[in-house]
Amino acid sequence: MRAEIISVGTEILLGDILNTNAQFLAKELAAIGIDVYNQTVVGDNEERMLKAFKNAFEKCDLIVATGGLGPTPDDLTKETAAKFFEQELVVHEESWKHIESYFNKSGRIMEGSNAKQAYFPKDAVVLPNPNGTAPGAILKKDEKMIVVLPGPPKEMKPMFINHVVPYLQQYSDTILVSKVLRIFGIGEGVMAEEISDIINGQSNPTVAPYAKERDVTLRITAKARDEEEARKLIKPVEDKIRERLNDNIYGEDDVTLEEVVAKMLVSNKLTIATAESCTGGLIAATLINYPGISEVFMEGAVTYSNDSKMQRLGVKSDTLEKYGAVSEETAGEMAEGIAKKAGTRVGISTTGIAGPGGGSTDKPVGLVYMAIHIDGTTLVRKFNFQGSRERIRQRATMNALDWLRRELIKKFNN
Amino acid sequence: MRAEIISVGTEILLGDILNTNAQFLAKELAAIGIDVYNQTVVGDNEERMLKAFKNAFEKCDLIVATGGLGPTPDDLTKETAAKFFEQELVVHEESWKHIESYFNKSGRIMEGSNAKQAYFPKDAVVLPNPNGTAPGAILKKDEKMIVVLPGPPKEMKPMFINHVVPYLQQYSDTILVSKVLRIFGIGEGVMAEEISDIINGQSNPTVAPYAKERDVTLRITAKARDEEEARKLIKPVEDKIRERLNDNIYGEDDVTLEEVVAKMLVSNKLTIATAESCTGGLIAATLINYPGISEVFMEGAVTYSNDSKMQRLGVKSDTLEKYGAVSEETAGEMAEGIAKKAGTRVGISTTGIAGPGGGSTDKPVGLVYMAIHIDGTTLVRKFNFQGSRERIRQRATMNALDWLRRELIKKFNN
Repeated sequence: MRAEIISVGTEILLGDILNTNAQFLAKELAAIGIDVYNQTVVGDNEERMLKAFKNAFEKCDLIVATGGLGPTPDDLTKETAAKFFEQELVVHEESWKHIESYFNKSGRIMEGSNAKQAYFPKDAVVLPNPNGTAPGAILKKDEKMIVVLPGPPKEMKPMFINHVVPYLQQYSDTILVSKVLRIFGIGEGVMAEEISDIINGQSNPTVAPYAKERDVTLRITAKARDEEEARKLIKPVEDKIRERLNDNIYGEDDVTLEEVVAKMLVSNKLTIATAESCTGGLIAATLINYPGISEVFMEGAVTYSNDSKMQRLGVKSDTLEKYGAVSEETAGEMAEGIAKKAGTRVGISTTGIAGPGGGSTDKPVGLVYMAIHIDGTTLVRKFNFQGSRERIRQRATMNALDWLRRELIKKFNN
Repeated sequence: MRAEIISVGTEILLGDILNTNAQFLAKELAAIGIDVYNQTVVGDNEERMLKAFKNAFEKCDLIVATGGLGPTPDDLTKETAAKFFEQELVVHEESWKHIESYFNKSGRIMEGSNAKQAYFPKDAVVLPNPNGTAPGAILKKDEKMIVVLPGPPKEMKPMFINHVVPYLQQYSDTILVSKVLRIFGIGEGVMAEEISDIINGQSNPTVAPYAKERDVTLRITAKARDEEEARKLIKPVEDKIRERLNDNIYGEDDVTLEEVVAKMLVSNKLTIATAESCTGGLIAATLINYPGISEVFMEGAVTYSNDSKMQRLGVKSDTLEKYGAVSEETAGEMAEGIAKKAGTRVGISTTGIAGPGGGSTDKPVGLVYMAIHIDGTTLVRKFNFQGSRERIRQRATMNALDWLRRELIKKFNN
């Protein structure tokens, strides 16, 4: 089965909003083995929509359209799809009741304009919408199918997953299953080189590297008749990759680096405190994304000024004078100091130049010293990051967490 | 002039990457008065691309295509555009030299496959690419035009702004100029109601509200022959809106809430320290986004445990016992405590239940107390936020900054 995704809406056409729906649908359709042949964006205009439907059905059997199911006269998608198939709209009792009760619950009165959302072609499969007033629908004529879905992602996504996917699966005899490996500590290029023979030698599963904002991922995708068969195809390739990339792989699928580190801290009952200068609280804020962290996270200090480094962390004024605030020595005393003051087994610190100003030849923008103090031992490392102030602080934060992850592996897995 | 945006690439078609290029181009084309009629995504396939070009030119005079200018045989966009216009590709000396020197600089040797990036139709306008090897081009035949641009946003965007916009402006006699007002503290619905007469009464400029992740914006867009005329149309409408929404408007265009607050602190030489529990360092990290903040930001404390609230901030154990960590009283003592310990004029604190666990009937997930201590006076407020842990922490952070902004306005502008 071949599909075209049609996104309806002037606000997408004019670039006011980013078309995330199309990406979501493309991925989900591919995952159930439906080939996405084309994606189109059209404005809320009957003539253009009719033309888009006509073009799409020249090569495809399925159109998935999002947007234009609202109550205003601008919202035309369902009406246009029905017109294209020459089907009449009649009231759908269940939807009428749903919309009525939706309004009652929120203490409002159903307006005449909302009634239009309860009209569908007689033979359409109506898709319930627990998250809004507009039901979706599957319209059919001969071998062609138009699925109309609401535009807001929080209404569209669950409707697609819960109702459209099960319906479409009858038309597909293969599925795609993916597993994502998440990697930190080596760049996309180096990684791709290390496993180029695996990437090039594979057709099922395929192996595709992606450079993301925060990390690098490898997606292993298998095509099979069912999930079990797909998993069997993925396993040996995954094993080979893991052998090659080792600890650079920090997790799978949707896990985050902070979640991995936080879980290691919690499961080993390792209390931690943070002392941040250039990262300004980002390490603490990132770790605290993980709900269970309160068991081990005792305290964070954002010590931006020299005064606060001395008073809060006990950094010596000699050290600051002799080596400067951005130095190996200061980083080390910061990590030791926070662990001591907070009474934790781990202390982690950053001090650096996030820019845009404040750099020099000796200490350029992007220079960051970090220290990890762990059960009495202090380690210090020097990093050089590139980019904007925000980028440097983000990279420093992620690198601090990754370094801590590697130290914890050394400590507990050897 | 009417345009269609065609994004070429299997990775967009399959949903592997989000199509941000189309949004960028849609906005930029609208800004120079070119009507975007349609957006399409096609795979790297000659036949499909030819069909997409044909469809587009039925209604449009201009195609802006991105992607498929790389060195591999998969990269077909330029070749297909030339084929569509029946134009032959010949070597373009300047591009050849550019690609050669690009490789030399990075210490690599130009490969045969890269040579193809230096071939263009004889009459094409070649667009230089300082950020990569693939030049873009403007191909023309009769009244039709195809602009081909590289896919990577960091190559495409500057090429479009620096070379395509000036070229296309000769075909347009109107421009669109927008001004964005940024709003915090009232929802999109309430705001739209407050100014519904202004929104509905306007056609040039138009006034459009948008709910964003962090705030709400109003975009005022005027169509005119030049920027000056457009600004004159915007001014009276902006004034009317400002009168109505007042301090809910915190800034214009791309400014952020933290930048506004940080600038107020710096210009009034108001030193500040933060004491965060549920926000876990996010207020500090957000304020420190602003580079000049080091002049006034003295110290931040992430006091997650009761112990750290007592030892670091001097919160009384009585207070914690009697009212709990999440209480008006604790929030107040936290803000006072951090201001005292850090020796600052302002102290700001948060304590709350970010979830997902830890809520009760009395103190549900989303309950957050905040305090602002400013020159000896302590104010406390109670908030209830909805959503995920991350969302609650984000909303709490933004609301803390907005509250501080309003207190600073009271203090310094009255």
